[in-house]
Amino acid sequence: LSRLPCEEEVLSHIKPETGEYTRIWKVAKELLSVVDESGIAKGMVVGSIARDTWVSGDRDLDVFMLFDPSLPREELEEQGLSLARGITTRFGGVPQEKYAEHPYINTNIVGLDVDLVPCYAVESASAIISAVDRTPFHTRYITEKINGLVDDVLLFKQFSKAGGVYGSDQMTEGFAGYLCELLVLHYGGFRPLVEAAVRWHAGLVIDIENHQAKEFSDPLVVIDPVDPRRNVAASLSVTRMFEFVEFCRGYLSAPSELFFQPHEPRVLGFPAFQEALSERGTALYAITCKTPGEIPDIVVPQLRRSVAGITALLERNGFVINRADSSMGEEKCMLLFELLVDHLPALKRHSGPPVWNPVNAEKYLKKYIQNESVFSGPYIEDGNYYVEIRRRWQDAGALLASRDLTNASLGKHIERSMKVHGWDVLKNEDCWQEAFVPFISTFLEHRSPLMRIQKARESAEPQNP
Amino acid sequence: LSRLPCEEEVLSHIKPETGEYTRIWKVAKELLSVVDESGIAKGMVVGSIARDTWVSGDRDLDVFMLFDPSLPREELEEQGLSLARGITTRFGGVPQEKYAEHPYINTNIVGLDVDLVPCYAVESASAIISAVDRTPFHTRYITEKINGLVDDVLLFKQFSKAGGVYGSDQMTEGFAGYLCELLVLHYGGFRPLVEAAVRWHAGLVIDIENHQAKEFSDPLVVIDPVDPRRNVAASLSVTRMFEFVEFCRGYLSAPSELFFQPHEPRVLGFPAFQEALSERGTALYAITCKTPGEIPDIVVPQLRRSVAGITALLERNGFVINRADSSMGEEKCMLLFELLVDHLPALKRHSGPPVWNPVNAEKYLKKYIQNESVFSGPYIEDGNYYVEIRRRWQDAGALLASRDLTNASLGKHIERSMKVHGWDVLKNEDCWQEAFVPFISTFLEHRSPLMRIQKARESAEPQNP
Repeated sequence: LSRLPCEEEVLSHIKPETGEYTRIWKVAKELLSVVDESGIAKGMVVGSIARDTWVSGDRDLDVFMLFDPSLPREELEEQGLSLARGITTRFGGVPQEKYAEHPYINTNIVGLDVDLVPCYAVESASAIISAVDRTPFHTRYITEKINGLVDDVLLFKQFSKAGGVYGSDQMTEGFAGYLCELLVLHYGGFRPLVEAAVRWHAGLVIDIENHQAKEFSDPLVVIDPVDPRRNVAASLSVTRMFEFVEFCRGYLSAPSELFFQPHEPRVLGFPAFQEALSERGTALYAITCKTPGEIPDIVVPQLRRSVAGITALLERNGFVINRADSSMGEEKCMLLFELLVDHLPALKRHSGPPVWNPVNAEKYLKKYIQNESVFSGPYIEDGNYYVEIRRRWQDAGALLASRDLTNASLGKHIERSMKVHGWDVLKNEDCWQEAFVPFISTFLEHRSPLMRIQKARESAEPQNP
Repeated sequence: LSRLPCEEEVLSHIKPETGEYTRIWKVAKELLSVVDESGIAKGMVVGSIARDTWVSGDRDLDVFMLFDPSLPREELEEQGLSLARGITTRFGGVPQEKYAEHPYINTNIVGLDVDLVPCYAVESASAIISAVDRTPFHTRYITEKINGLVDDVLLFKQFSKAGGVYGSDQMTEGFAGYLCELLVLHYGGFRPLVEAAVRWHAGLVIDIENHQAKEFSDPLVVIDPVDPRRNVAASLSVTRMFEFVEFCRGYLSAPSELFFQPHEPRVLGFPAFQEALSERGTALYAITCKTPGEIPDIVVPQLRRSVAGITALLERNGFVINRADSSMGEEKCMLLFELLVDHLPALKRHSGPPVWNPVNAEKYLKKYIQNESVFSGPYIEDGNYYVEIRRRWQDAGALLASRDLTNASLGKHIERSMKVHGWDVLKNEDCWQEAFVPFISTFLEHRSPLMRIQKARESAEPQNP
């Protein structure tokens, strides 16, 4: 399969040169020998460096320390951390304790972002004790099969990054590195994968080893070749999946290096922000609160849940929402809501019980017949009671600033942050907080990745009359 | 079954005295003998006068002229009308031609509202040629069975009138006189009927002769004793049915003459109207157009359909409606809409095709990528395209005044009236048109019949502190 000139061009930039390769492997091998020398664990390089599928400039070196499976979990953690700290100090790094399924050490060694992760050296992937034990099997599987497709993986990773769909973290909800490798393997290269993806539909199942042992309802299912009960694509959202499908269609119809250039989000200035607000005519509300201390993979889904909860609260109260999103900053988080309607009349229609149920009907009538705030009713429509009463919240801003907000099924840590530290409600131009300028800009200029490229290309070309 | 004092009291007012009885029957008998004398038809008194179930003060005398079934339809109409005109003139009345399933004559004779209706004297109800041929069978059926229950029918009719649910015309959508008689027959009296009705539910079937030969999906099904394929309650709406159920509950819990007093709708003055508008805070829009020449039973359902069509048009354009209704006046019709939201921002969210369909996706993108009025997008959410574009109508009043209105699936004659004579759009205080003051008052004071009584009783009683 011949490559397009633009693909060759991209490869020449992203493929690590021999110098980069030997520099990284020198460090890696030194780390491995120190682990092995300890006598208590065996070292193994995993991830894209182990598989030769890293893109030039990547600085992530993952070294796993494989311990005997007979070691109790507590001792694994203790011995693993102790060994990792010793190694870090020996290489002049500062150890930072992090936590996935169990604790590990992250550090910087001669410019590389190194993870030192303890795990169990189990005999087969079906015998894993902790999820990290699976990683060595992934590395062995890819290393064995990837021959001849390394360049295709590099192209595909760069393509996914440019499309904003690379990474299985909670913020991105996109394609993990291992998933990229499996897809290239399955379709036999970058181009065949892209050509197939334009016809992807939700519910697609890819089972390379033909050994699926569990059903999944995810939009894309890629059965793990080393674990028949695991979907490698579980964290891919349906939005990211179809942004990718659209991105592939765009590439095939007009291939160019644009599809490999990382997206630099356009940042608005304050006057452009003001103009956008006034042209849209909507009401923009931001809620800001102190960022909880937890890691992004905990906080981001909670922000998402909070946005959904507050959207439901606003809609229950009759306000009409166009779109909402959230952003986790260092100091503060922002939940952003664009409302079509943020002010409502005093009157609100309240739906009651059906008339055929005498008990509920009687309770309902008792409640409303002597109620001073009734405008009309109770009346009957199609067998159901209705009454028109005074609305609790006529103004969306007042609702968002009220205690009602913390009852809006927020994420746990967001709710706690708001209850302890309070929150601010900002409207329209006041939403323009410096730390959130890129976020707000992207919110207003919201486009799919392909549309961003099309729009950029269009602005660059001379306009047809 | 003993009657309550209030029932006895009501009966003493609504039961025709001997004088009224003999006066009406004197006219009826004279009319009958003139029909018989013609030699071409036989006279028959039908309706409530024939059955002795008329309420004192009723002035409707229905005389049917039964022709031989072998007579062709055209000749029946010609001979029937000619005979009726002759009789009318002879009794000093002015003949007015009206039309049900075929033409008949309506006139006023010594203060009675007399209908002279030609029909076929068929041998059985199953052999009817036109729907009016069924009426003599109804009269014979009720006359034969109603012995001893005449007072109960009178009470029940008065009760239904007071509850606003008497009459099977399109405006009322309530209980026809024949339906009232059948229900009293079925339950064995006024009180057993009212006691049963409090537990009515939608879908109830009453089949006195146990001969149902067709399924119905109406809220109440009462199989016609003279026609197993007909639902006598077909024109009863579910709203009227349950207003009646609620009215019965109210009567049983506190029986009083109030439940037999015709409802006098409270009419607002202009200052009270202004105050109601300002308290509700909603936007009231009225559309008025020339009343079509057709009878109410044609026009009223078309007004209803037009209100539904315009409501859907408003909602499609993002406006939020609380309630809508219509009124057919002599000169003009009014369609009234109460909006919670009548002004919207420029921005509108437009939902596009799913991304997985490449053909539709491509068409959609072509349409919007170069569109100047795009605020955001196209973007992808959960596998679907969306775009945020400029809204066509930001103001509900402008939409209602535009040509778009006549494409809103209006009733046929309403649409024609609007297209030929135009229409006016009035807002808030301008809706206060003299001919529609009772209609607008009832619209704003909207209550079920029972609630009207409760409210009236409450206002009359001294308030508890």
